[in-house]
Amino acid sequence: MFITFEGIDLCGKSTQARMLVEYLQSRKKKVIYVREPGGTKISEKIRHLLLDKDHVEMEYVTEFLLFSASRYQLTNEIIIPRLKKKFVVICDRYFDSSTAYQGFGGKIDVKDIKSVNKFATSGLKPDITFLLNITPQESFRRKKIMNKAGDRIEEKTLSYYKKVVDGYMRIASSEKKRFKVIDGTKNVNDIHQYIVSVINRNI
Amino acid sequence: MFITFEGIDLCGKSTQARMLVEYLQSRKKKVIYVREPGGTKISEKIRHLLLDKDHVEMEYVTEFLLFSASRYQLTNEIIIPRLKKKFVVICDRYFDSSTAYQGFGGKIDVKDIKSVNKFATSGLKPDITFLLNITPQESFRRKKIMNKAGDRIEEKTLSYYKKVVDGYMRIASSEKKRFKVIDGTKNVNDIHQYIVSVINRNI
Repeated sequence: MFITFEGIDLCGKSTQARMLVEYLQSRKKKVIYVREPGGTKISEKIRHLLLDKDHVEMEYVTEFLLFSASRYQLTNEIIIPRLKKKFVVICDRYFDSSTAYQGFGGKIDVKDIKSVNKFATSGLKPDITFLLNITPQESFRRKKIMNKAGDRIEEKTLSYYKKVVDGYMRIASSEKKRFKVIDGTKNVNDIHQYIVSVINRNI
Repeated sequence: MFITFEGIDLCGKSTQARMLVEYLQSRKKKVIYVREPGGTKISEKIRHLLLDKDHVEMEYVTEFLLFSASRYQLTNEIIIPRLKKKFVVICDRYFDSSTAYQGFGGKIDVKDIKSVNKFATSGLKPDITFLLNITPQESFRRKKIMNKAGDRIEEKTLSYYKKVVDGYMRIASSEKKRFKVIDGTKNVNDIHQYIVSVINRNI
């Protein structure tokens, strides 16, 4: 089973992914957590390149192709082999992030995004995708509280993030069966209980 | 005018590219030389990642997507702006390298290669492509003479390079107008004179 978490920064997806991993481990399931971009030696180097604040001149298509390179390596080196060994694979971001960020946010033609996404994932799709939905304002508010310095992508503007959030909602509504949209301002434990209930219905 | 040089390692393309740059400069043309992968700050970092011998597990598709990311950045940051300013742009390798190396050599579906190539070049095509043709054996012989340590891609096997050379010839024969195929074992100055004569007919 392949489960992904999506949403903008500080929506709570990494926390929920971790809580789900712990829950599945406590149930003696074989489970692995990976994050994008990253998760392999090569993909982590691509991550570094992508997030470096020095790279102000990086074009959205360059960014998208780097994410795709990292994704192909992660998919074929880790995700597919583990799925074959009956692991539950939990991935923090996957190709929907590219559709939302570089597609809807960066205005790359969604047809091009879809075709490269398919190529860069070897056609693999998550079974369930949890989208933690918060507004860009809420994301910025949480960032301020945590006094968190943003990376190159996190430092983009509010209007960019609005397009990303709208993009996520459009993707989710086009694939209602795969997507579970969650209000990311709700209580952390309530969200976790909901996620567990969805998993238990599907596992 | 956009001119590219193609061929396997040590076919003489960098030498010929340099000689052509010097010739055009002596004729007071505005000219710029760039190489792939590389040519911009971001692309040079991708180059480093691509050629690192430590990356033995790199998949051909990952390699191809990294080349494509580097290519998009180079194309949009340097090549297109310079062409607009009426420069002659001379590029050491371009998308034909991906078709030959990762497509024919790495066995990625050529249809996928073509579609990503078009996306990663914003549809730009060279006006003239010089293909310096030598056998893999000749390339290996020259490498030995020069006692040159190969990078990750250069260290691949003879059978791989055979597929790359065959691939190059197939690409050239499918685009006879753009490609000028040159016997890379000929005298360096004779090759240069031929290249100059082609350029002067087209400039």
